Amino acid sequence: MLNQISLSIPLDRDGEEPIYRQLIRHIRMQIESGTLPAGVRLPASRDLARQLNISRISVVNAYAELRAQGHLSAHAGRGTFVSGEANGNMPTSNGNGSTPIIETQTSPDRSIREMMRLARNKPGVINFGHGAPPTEFFPVQNLRDAINTVLDRDGSTALGYEAPEGFSPLRAAVRDYVSALGIRCNADRVLITGGAQQALDLVVQALLSEGEVIVTENPTYLGMIDIARARRVQIHGISMDDDGIRLDELENFIIDNNPRLIYVMPTLHNPTGKVMPLHRRRQLLNLANEYNIPILEDGVYHELRFEGESLPPLKALDDTGIVIHVSAFSKMMLPGLRIGYVLTDNGHYERLVRVKQAADISTSGLNQRAIHLLLERGLLAQQLERNNRELKRRRDVALAAAEKYLPPGTRWNVPEGGIYLWAQLPKSGPNAAELYITAIQMGVAYAIGNVFYTNGCGSHRMRLNYGTQKPAEIEEGFRRLGRAWRELACDYSDIDKSMLL
Amino acid sequence: MLNQISLSIPLDRDGEEPIYRQLIRHIRMQIESGTLPAGVRLPASRDLARQLNISRISVVNAYAELRAQGHLSAHAGRGTFVSGEANGNMPTSNGNGSTPIIETQTSPDRSIREMMRLARNKPGVINFGHGAPPTEFFPVQNLRDAINTVLDRDGSTALGYEAPEGFSPLRAAVRDYVSALGIRCNADRVLITGGAQQALDLVVQALLSEGEVIVTENPTYLGMIDIARARRVQIHGISMDDDGIRLDELENFIIDNNPRLIYVMPTLHNPTGKVMPLHRRRQLLNLANEYNIPILEDGVYHELRFEGESLPPLKALDDTGIVIHVSAFSKMMLPGLRIGYVLTDNGHYERLVRVKQAADISTSGLNQRAIHLLLERGLLAQQLERNNRELKRRRDVALAAAEKYLPPGTRWNVPEGGIYLWAQLPKSGPNAAELYITAIQMGVAYAIGNVFYTNGCGSHRMRLNYGTQKPAEIEEGFRRLGRAWRELACDYSDIDKSMLL
Repeated sequence: MLNQISLSIPLDRDGEEPIYRQLIRHIRMQIESGTLPAGVRLPASRDLARQLNISRISVVNAYAELRAQGHLSAHAGRGTFVSGEANGNMPTSNGNGSTPIIETQTSPDRSIREMMRLARNKPGVINFGHGAPPTEFFPVQNLRDAINTVLDRDGSTALGYEAPEGFSPLRAAVRDYVSALGIRCNADRVLITGGAQQALDLVVQALLSEGEVIVTENPTYLGMIDIARARRVQIHGISMDDDGIRLDELENFIIDNNPRLIYVMPTLHNPTGKVMPLHRRRQLLNLANEYNIPILEDGVYHELRFEGESLPPLKALDDTGIVIHVSAFSKMMLPGLRIGYVLTDNGHYERLVRVKQAADISTSGLNQRAIHLLLERGLLAQQLERNNRELKRRRDVALAAAEKYLPPGTRWNVPEGGIYLWAQLPKSGPNAAELYITAIQMGVAYAIGNVFYTNGCGSHRMRLNYGTQKPAEIEEGFRRLGRAWRELACDYSDIDKSMLL
Repeated sequence: MLNQISLSIPLDRDGEEPIYRQLIRHIRMQIESGTLPAGVRLPASRDLARQLNISRISVVNAYAELRAQGHLSAHAGRGTFVSGEANGNMPTSNGNGSTPIIETQTSPDRSIREMMRLARNKPGVINFGHGAPPTEFFPVQNLRDAINTVLDRDGSTALGYEAPEGFSPLRAAVRDYVSALGIRCNADRVLITGGAQQALDLVVQALLSEGEVIVTENPTYLGMIDIARARRVQIHGISMDDDGIRLDELENFIIDNNPRLIYVMPTLHNPTGKVMPLHRRRQLLNLANEYNIPILEDGVYHELRFEGESLPPLKALDDTGIVIHVSAFSKMMLPGLRIGYVLTDNGHYERLVRVKQAADISTSGLNQRAIHLLLERGLLAQQLERNNRELKRRRDVALAAAEKYLPPGTRWNVPEGGIYLWAQLPKSGPNAAELYITAIQMGVAYAIGNVFYTNGCGSHRMRLNYGTQKPAEIEEGFRRLGRAWRELACDYSDIDKSMLL
């Protein structure tokens, strides 16, 4: 049954969802409904592109992903076919048809994130897509020593339940540690958490009911968008200028929408790398105080600064208790231990502890004790210094490689710290999602910019984690990225051909 | 200013809140409002008891707790006074008067739990109040070996972010482990969590919106009551008979209230120790299927059975996918590693993973790898066998001590496993909350039964964790408990004096 068919696909050309994603969705639906039975040959990509009046690369990408999902199969020289076992790895609907699972419908970023997961298992792909710090600097031996020392010292006590607030000596060590950043707080206002992610989640749960509003920078940390979705609170992003979140827009939003929380990352913002200058920090604090809205400050990248003047966290400037400060030892040292903290000196603390206790009783006591020992031994400071020296070196390699390989018209920041380059592809070419599968095929991956926006913007943006790759791989990865773009860009008729050189 | 005053205290004699808690609340309010200024002498306990027509012990307990909180101070032979620094450690109201902290008002069990915290730091107190397993059997050396092996084998990989679903080999090991309990499941339906507590919390968050209803046994696991409060869902307990949750009452409740989830602990229920027989298990499954309501099965004590016929978990009997099974390695081995799991074979899995990711990205990879190695080396089975042998021995000591020392008229269960004795004091004497401070003063603590009920019942109940104490301490602790009761019971005029012998 080698029959070829003509596909009827209604496309939304003005929507947020990339064309190739719409294609994937429609073709999948037709396979699942039986409209496209197994064995049917699909039109050649060039033909379908012409028929639908879209770029050929959209079709190529859609077919590639449908092949990866097992819905289609390709036979060299013969074309692309609906696969026989197409239903094999499709998500089935709720087996017992029972509980209504409350869920926003599949959003564009959901499918983009599914696509980004492709990169995980591909051997040979240079992956700039992670949010993780470079692993080769993890202090494995120091940690091993620390754990052995803790088990010798504390025995089974280290393996019992810890208090929900955290291991007391670690809480005191965090107090001392943040005092070096200018933050004064009591140890009894330190809550130890399962990484910064849990800290953020606890604050959102303690302060917001379902349907209430959190306001953030736009773009913002992906994990905060996840939290908002999981906790069914609304999230709204405010544009940024060079100094960070725009206060005029923020104030208008506050007046109109009464948000319960302002979430910001003032130093080395993820994904943009921006650092909010001192005057903007003070203005933001004033605004928050004026409208009495707590600020949730995310400081996870604060200490990863290798250039520029060091600025105090908002919490260090806070004399009214309006700031809740969250950070962790993940980015700089040991993500796998999952140790973070929240500092708050207002009335939220007790409620946070109760939410923490309901969430998981307490954070692993063994891990808390190990981190405590590493702090006490001064190994964190050493670790940071070595890390930042190397991150700066890699940043420089990345900047040079960007200059050399990224398409003309691409723009990027010059980060003063952290692990990310935040780039914008020329609008005349493929966007970051459209480029993705070709990039993977060429052996390079990145984070697609869309996913960091609360409103689906940023389609031509990409976040490149140079921190996790060795210099030679950064160079090679950027080279592949440029090559992938040039291959795709042929399909963009309105593109300046000189850019392909 | 040694002036003594007459207190005006309106008491609610029919309410859920124990009289002595009401006293504490009223006296504190009057101190905070300035009605009772520093230095004022309070009436002698006997006088106030007569004036208010309540038992003297209520006054004694209230004064004792207010002293412990720093609101009152006692001067031997001169009486009890409002303390000068009374405001020193009082919770202050929200400093910036800002965000409305959503919070149910202080419930009786909140203050009872505060009271139970007193026992934590008291030296010399034999504490039967914990929910923890005996620490002396924690496999410290085995864990130490496992961690060192993992770090040698995996190096920095063990310290990076783990996948949100968990470390794959551990997920497969859990699948194999539960198959020995009769549960068939795929490794790709195993989600690793931060202990059973996080597993329960994730399920509640994934399946319920604020205000929706979860139905449980009454009494039930305290941590589930915490979750309901923190997540703002309603919790309703159904009475138990000897076979566990009453199905007639449950069915009526389902018809009237449309709960989203049925939470049960069929084997060695906490706190009652009950084991649901096979026929009730099947009936419960039928009921859940009939009304299409998922069952959340908590299996944390399942393997701690040292007597009686072993019964399959609900999940092993489930052929429709209605059961979500939660368990952990905490109770039997290593609470401080915080490793638990959820098994579900219906459509909830993907949503659970997303909620997990929002909650804390992933569970510590190092800890997951260590547990995996312990499982693989067969050390869990060894550990369990040794544990259960000793638990049975301690259970027998506890039963004999209860017979010997607990007040006549006290009733208790004969647990077939686990770590708890669930006792009921005679109604004619002080209840468990009233007895508590005297018990602490005599050097013994327990969990006050109230806190396990969703509706404030169980005032004469207490949960005694014999598992964490050595036999000699069990004997001595029960002796102290009997003595505390007899001391207090003098104040109960309607008590049979022969019981005091």
